[in-house]
Amino acid sequence: MIDRTYSDEITAEQDGETVSIAGHVHEIRDLGGLTFVIVRDREGKTQVVFKEENDEDLFEAAQDLHKEDVVQISGRVKASDQAPGGVELAPTGMEVISESDTPLPMEVAKDIESDLSTRLDNRAIDLRKPETYAVFSLRSKLMSAMEEWFDDEGYVDVDTPLISQEGAEGGAELFPVVYYGDEVFLSQSPQLYKQMLMAAGFDKIYETGTAFRAEAFATSRHVSEIAMFDVELAYIEDHHDVMDVQEESLRYALEQVAENARDELEVLDVDLDVPTEPFPRITFDEARDILATEYDHVPDDSDDLDTKGEKLLGEHFEEQGHPAFFVVGYPNEKFYYRQNVPGDDIASRKFDLVYKGQELSSGGQREHDIETMEQLMDEQGADPENFHFYLEAFRFGIPPHGGYGLGIDRLVQKVADLENIKEAILFPRDPDRVTP
Amino acid sequence: MIDRTYSDEITAEQDGETVSIAGHVHEIRDLGGLTFVIVRDREGKTQVVFKEENDEDLFEAAQDLHKEDVVQISGRVKASDQAPGGVELAPTGMEVISESDTPLPMEVAKDIESDLSTRLDNRAIDLRKPETYAVFSLRSKLMSAMEEWFDDEGYVDVDTPLISQEGAEGGAELFPVVYYGDEVFLSQSPQLYKQMLMAAGFDKIYETGTAFRAEAFATSRHVSEIAMFDVELAYIEDHHDVMDVQEESLRYALEQVAENARDELEVLDVDLDVPTEPFPRITFDEARDILATEYDHVPDDSDDLDTKGEKLLGEHFEEQGHPAFFVVGYPNEKFYYRQNVPGDDIASRKFDLVYKGQELSSGGQREHDIETMEQLMDEQGADPENFHFYLEAFRFGIPPHGGYGLGIDRLVQKVADLENIKEAILFPRDPDRVTP
Repeated sequence: MIDRTYSDEITAEQDGETVSIAGHVHEIRDLGGLTFVIVRDREGKTQVVFKEENDEDLFEAAQDLHKEDVVQISGRVKASDQAPGGVELAPTGMEVISESDTPLPMEVAKDIESDLSTRLDNRAIDLRKPETYAVFSLRSKLMSAMEEWFDDEGYVDVDTPLISQEGAEGGAELFPVVYYGDEVFLSQSPQLYKQMLMAAGFDKIYETGTAFRAEAFATSRHVSEIAMFDVELAYIEDHHDVMDVQEESLRYALEQVAENARDELEVLDVDLDVPTEPFPRITFDEARDILATEYDHVPDDSDDLDTKGEKLLGEHFEEQGHPAFFVVGYPNEKFYYRQNVPGDDIASRKFDLVYKGQELSSGGQREHDIETMEQLMDEQGADPENFHFYLEAFRFGIPPHGGYGLGIDRLVQKVADLENIKEAILFPRDPDRVTP
Repeated sequence: MIDRTYSDEITAEQDGETVSIAGHVHEIRDLGGLTFVIVRDREGKTQVVFKEENDEDLFEAAQDLHKEDVVQISGRVKASDQAPGGVELAPTGMEVISESDTPLPMEVAKDIESDLSTRLDNRAIDLRKPETYAVFSLRSKLMSAMEEWFDDEGYVDVDTPLISQEGAEGGAELFPVVYYGDEVFLSQSPQLYKQMLMAAGFDKIYETGTAFRAEAFATSRHVSEIAMFDVELAYIEDHHDVMDVQEESLRYALEQVAENARDELEVLDVDLDVPTEPFPRITFDEARDILATEYDHVPDDSDDLDTKGEKLLGEHFEEQGHPAFFVVGYPNEKFYYRQNVPGDDIASRKFDLVYKGQELSSGGQREHDIETMEQLMDEQGADPENFHFYLEAFRFGIPPHGGYGLGIDRLVQKVADLENIKEAILFPRDPDRVTP
């Protein structure tokens, strides 16, 4: 490896020592006989002070630098109260590893607000910004912590296929794939496979995967290619066991990030709200009551809460110190997503998790009785032929089970406090964007 | 959660205590007035002994059980030398949670060798077999350990898109997708995106992702939907830095599995060979010399080693105590995969990792000089227009970098000692199979 020390590892205690740094040239400030070069690496920035009086050749070389050149610079550490981070480097050697063209297609260093479309068009440049990088460093730590919780609890990390003959949701929301001459589809959800694994006795599983939705949307919370964190567990009493798992794992992941991603949160200027209290679990009817009485809001669809409704409920609960809550008991759901229990105090065993006013996941207890399932399919007009393998799995003994699918991009959007979900994705896809 | 203890947690020390188990009925043996029921859960099996003289109702209920029913049984633990695992249960209560149809489409309990196609057609049943489940429990532990190594080393876990306008390899090996009326393609490799992130200063990244190859193959080591573990790192001196990373991370993952997945390895009857010595790194020419002189084998393609060649080299090195080795310096490679260095002692900075006689990954130092890159593209007939975003990322300062892509399915195949790669995948996809 090329000899280098990360910016944040150079401290005032090293005053007088020689170190080597490497990174992109972030800024160049010429003060006549004195040139400040700010070198940026993944962990931060280091100020290098080139003085004509010290070394004429090196000083000349600094004059030839461009923003975003990749350089390796060795120098003596100097403690300095004026310098950012309390240290600067007096250079003793420099190598330009890779030169940058000028002008840059967009600014990295200056705090110019580019619109999102320009940022995404030039994503390889946009990702150089410390505040953009921080999102993805945070995302990585968040998901590692999440997986760690499930690993520690004995869950099996599974990979279900992305190419299938049938989608879970079906219909117009599927992307067709030409597969050796046949038409197949991209997966919208691992739901059916998760349930087949429950039948197979896998007991507790999770999957960090991808889902595809061919919807023609134009919102700040939808994309066509979605990162999903899916969970399914067997031998549950009811959907509250599933909510327990989601609540504990999310709390753990947020706690870990609050601790391990302090730098990222600082760069993003986020004061992370880790829920300490149990998440409220309100029924669908209670949710609609709150909206009607407190906000005079009645969602159009009587079987659902709308985006505005979720946002208002988010405010309602955040005021009470709850950034996250569950809404339980949606009256209608597709047959593979929930179980109806006659005489149950709630209409269905489906729940949604709302975090900071946005739905992050849907889950529930699933139906595991094949006769009820077949009846539901019949009522909902689903052709059993299209679900042959799925139903087959239910015929030979299947434990009660439930689970949920969490939108990773939405979670990151909310944790990093981003306006648009696309900011939480390296190279997002929507109806108008399939590049870079 | 339903009250239950896993099979492997019931010990002879609990003699006389009451426990509750839940799982599938694995076997039923009727000895007249005495019925042995073996209950299987994820962690193993428990023998339950129903005696007519003890409880007539329970004994009758046991007569009505079918293989693969899901049951919950409470009972008193009895230490017993004859029983598998040294304990059995004297039942005090039983509930049939879910009944199984008869007959089963394939046997779970009996040691009948089904052909792979039958097994995959009935995968939800096949996955109930302890030796099938062990593969995926092992796979989960192996990949968790792998990711842990990279997390600890400060790598950022990234998600690159699976839908793109252009493939890395291009041509006939791409699956077309109908994307809002346009034709786009499924990703064959995150290669281009990994390199764009190196340009963006991400420094060290890994991705557990999916790659798609539309090849018309029929081998025991190819599938159409592939689980890939991709790594890329910047500021390398050369490709040996990349090999160091691959060697250390693989050794760590194998060590962890040897320790944490002992039960799975035992069920699979695998004596895991963890490489303790440094992996040999031989040149392409040396590899061909060994094949010619020791095995009288000359691969057809003068620029590659063939499958037989890899297998023979595997034998050669395994005899010397090396289950893994690198072959370095392939003479020809696509422009985005390797760097040519004039006067280098090797023809190219590309390497392959061979483990137990099978190529698991390809990697190398990449070209980062845009002019050389454009020249290579010209020589290889690639249209720069198709690589617009990729080249753009190289124009504004990019550090030297390299990486590799490791086939997860192949790794699991080799670690679990499976004949066919499809056995290492829950629901594999090939030219003839897109179900279940």
